Amino acid sequence: MKILVINCGSSSIKYQLFDMTEETVLASGLVEKIGTESAIIKHKVPGREEKIITAEILDHRVGMKKVLDLLMDPEEGVISSADEVTAVGHRVVHGGEDFSGSVIIDEAVRQALRRNIDLAPLHNPPNLLGIDAAQEQLPHAVHVGVFDTAFHQTMPDYAYMYAIPNVLYRKYKIRRYGFHGTSHKYVSEKAAKFVGKPLEDLKIISCHIGNGASITAVQNGKSVDTSMGMTPLEGLMMGTRCGDIDPAVVPFVITKEDLTLSEVNSMMNRHSGLLGVSGVSGDMREVTEAMENGNDQARLAIDMYVYKIKKTIGAYVAAMNGIDILLFTAGVGENASMIRERVCEGLTCFGIKLNRALNEERSKEVRRISTPESKVDVLVVPTNEELMIAKETKKLVK
Amino acid sequence: MKILVINCGSSSIKYQLFDMTEETVLASGLVEKIGTESAIIKHKVPGREEKIITAEILDHRVGMKKVLDLLMDPEEGVISSADEVTAVGHRVVHGGEDFSGSVIIDEAVRQALRRNIDLAPLHNPPNLLGIDAAQEQLPHAVHVGVFDTAFHQTMPDYAYMYAIPNVLYRKYKIRRYGFHGTSHKYVSEKAAKFVGKPLEDLKIISCHIGNGASITAVQNGKSVDTSMGMTPLEGLMMGTRCGDIDPAVVPFVITKEDLTLSEVNSMMNRHSGLLGVSGVSGDMREVTEAMENGNDQARLAIDMYVYKIKKTIGAYVAAMNGIDILLFTAGVGENASMIRERVCEGLTCFGIKLNRALNEERSKEVRRISTPESKVDVLVVPTNEELMIAKETKKLVK
Repeated sequence: MKILVINCGSSSIKYQLFDMTEETVLASGLVEKIGTESAIIKHKVPGREEKIITAEILDHRVGMKKVLDLLMDPEEGVISSADEVTAVGHRVVHGGEDFSGSVIIDEAVRQALRRNIDLAPLHNPPNLLGIDAAQEQLPHAVHVGVFDTAFHQTMPDYAYMYAIPNVLYRKYKIRRYGFHGTSHKYVSEKAAKFVGKPLEDLKIISCHIGNGASITAVQNGKSVDTSMGMTPLEGLMMGTRCGDIDPAVVPFVITKEDLTLSEVNSMMNRHSGLLGVSGVSGDMREVTEAMENGNDQARLAIDMYVYKIKKTIGAYVAAMNGIDILLFTAGVGENASMIRERVCEGLTCFGIKLNRALNEERSKEVRRISTPESKVDVLVVPTNEELMIAKETKKLVK
Repeated sequence: MKILVINCGSSSIKYQLFDMTEETVLASGLVEKIGTESAIIKHKVPGREEKIITAEILDHRVGMKKVLDLLMDPEEGVISSADEVTAVGHRVVHGGEDFSGSVIIDEAVRQALRRNIDLAPLHNPPNLLGIDAAQEQLPHAVHVGVFDTAFHQTMPDYAYMYAIPNVLYRKYKIRRYGFHGTSHKYVSEKAAKFVGKPLEDLKIISCHIGNGASITAVQNGKSVDTSMGMTPLEGLMMGTRCGDIDPAVVPFVITKEDLTLSEVNSMMNRHSGLLGVSGVSGDMREVTEAMENGNDQARLAIDMYVYKIKKTIGAYVAAMNGIDILLFTAGVGENASMIRERVCEGLTCFGIKLNRALNEERSKEVRRISTPESKVDVLVVPTNEELMIAKETKKLVK
């Protein structure tokens, strides 16, 4: 069975075609700068050289057609007909309270996605465009929506409600939803398998630390709390997002700097975090380099970044009254050994003991980086959201 | 030595006159509804009946004069001349970055207080009014400012900075300040004395849970982190304040409900918290009663309240990499045994073991409520901010 996984941004389409027999990738790629005359397609088939094409792609429909053309191309392609694609898994950011699992997309689902546009105005509209475009190109395939929020729908009310007037929840569904659910679910399942214990018996703290970053408390296989909130802004300090601040800072800055609401949102989402504090970059590698060269603002940014991760882990140890596995995943989590070391060295009170040599090793496999004496298994678990989306999709086709 | 302690709100003056020889209270009281023709003065001398007076009091100057008149009244009074008051300790809410300890108030200090009005627009102006009024009535006394923020000035930068663009800190001093400093300092000193260990060797988590509520991590006698932020809105869920929320909720609500900035501030500070969630009251006793009568919103409010305290304790265990003493103080912290029990019963992973019988006892003294086996001393420590202000004031008079 061949499954295509699609992840659409406002001006991009990420795709990956899986052969689910052995869960192998047949082709993957990225369409960027959609809406311009010089859009770029990067198309990669394992074992072959990457193909880069520039073309006028004015909307997602044209973009999706180009992707299908490439996949079926006699030279660059990997399939001979669109009918070979049994199903398409669509990554959808915000399912609101409507979706606690993946679903086959029908008209009711589309309506629910539209209802949740308010909650994710930047993400859900391009996700919907992607669904339309893919259904046009692949009308016979089963289209499945896999939601970033779905895994977190198991949170208890006292973890997802905000202490604001109750009417705001009733009217607008303002609450914590959480994101990166597909990843947190995937890596916690991987972690349980790795330590050889049933997921149902474990207290896992999953740190998905990439450009966006969130930590989830996974108890007995269920998300019981997560650091992102109604939007992906809350929680950890990220590449360019501020994470938690005193909510009173928002009206204060609006007044002082005479900002519009859209400007203050942009300030918090795109000019804050590592970038805002360091003044250097939102990329951990560049901030680390600046710190190593003696830049004190970069030092501060990384100190804050690590400190917030530590505090969130502590909060979730309290939330679950214990911890069995601490895992790191995503760009920074998988690659920045310095961040993992600094987080763990300050958490010996939880019984965490890091093996520094293991922590420095690089690998694409799940691995343990704690010592045998450590009461907590500390793991690095490479995430694979695309594969997880393909697997979720496959389940629904069956 | 007699010291008068003053705490002015926008329409109130709280006062307490101490004889510092034995730290006894000679008289205390409260002027309310200043600015009206029917202001109320409640004046209490230990051992005598409380005196309640209604009078036209249009400003703090008149209010302060009435207080002095009462203190010197041949029948209701306790001193015969204003000159008996050696010093006045003024509670000041926001010292910004200017004050890391108490100071004798001079013109430079007044200017600094004015500079910080922006950071505490509701609190610093009445504090300044109170200073003026008291200096007019007691021109020969030493006037000392004791700041709610001062104790927290020892926080490291990575704990007090927000991950927003750095320029906002440089221009407006937007950062975490923390409040209830006088209380956190007082109770952590008391706690160290109670367990018979030097404050310098202890990791204390101090939960000041009243109508306003904050938790402070006190390491080696110094505040290293605290849950309130630039303003007293951040952190825990409180009586009517929301505490932490996704910062993106603020512009979202402004748009949806078409609110002004002052309305959204009012929503977050006065209509949220226990009141906003339960719909019943901001008073823990009334919400508890409603919960016991089966009100599910009240149940949710208390679940959220307890959960946030637990998570904050966990965060500070991580911040200090350990905990020796967990203490509860202030209205709810000292009196609500149910809240203490629910917080502690979920934190056994930190080695906390509560003695339920001791937890139910009531007393005005410092007491231990953990079992002898508990790795963490759990204490109830009655706070006394007025006495602490008097002691701080006395230090500066000497």
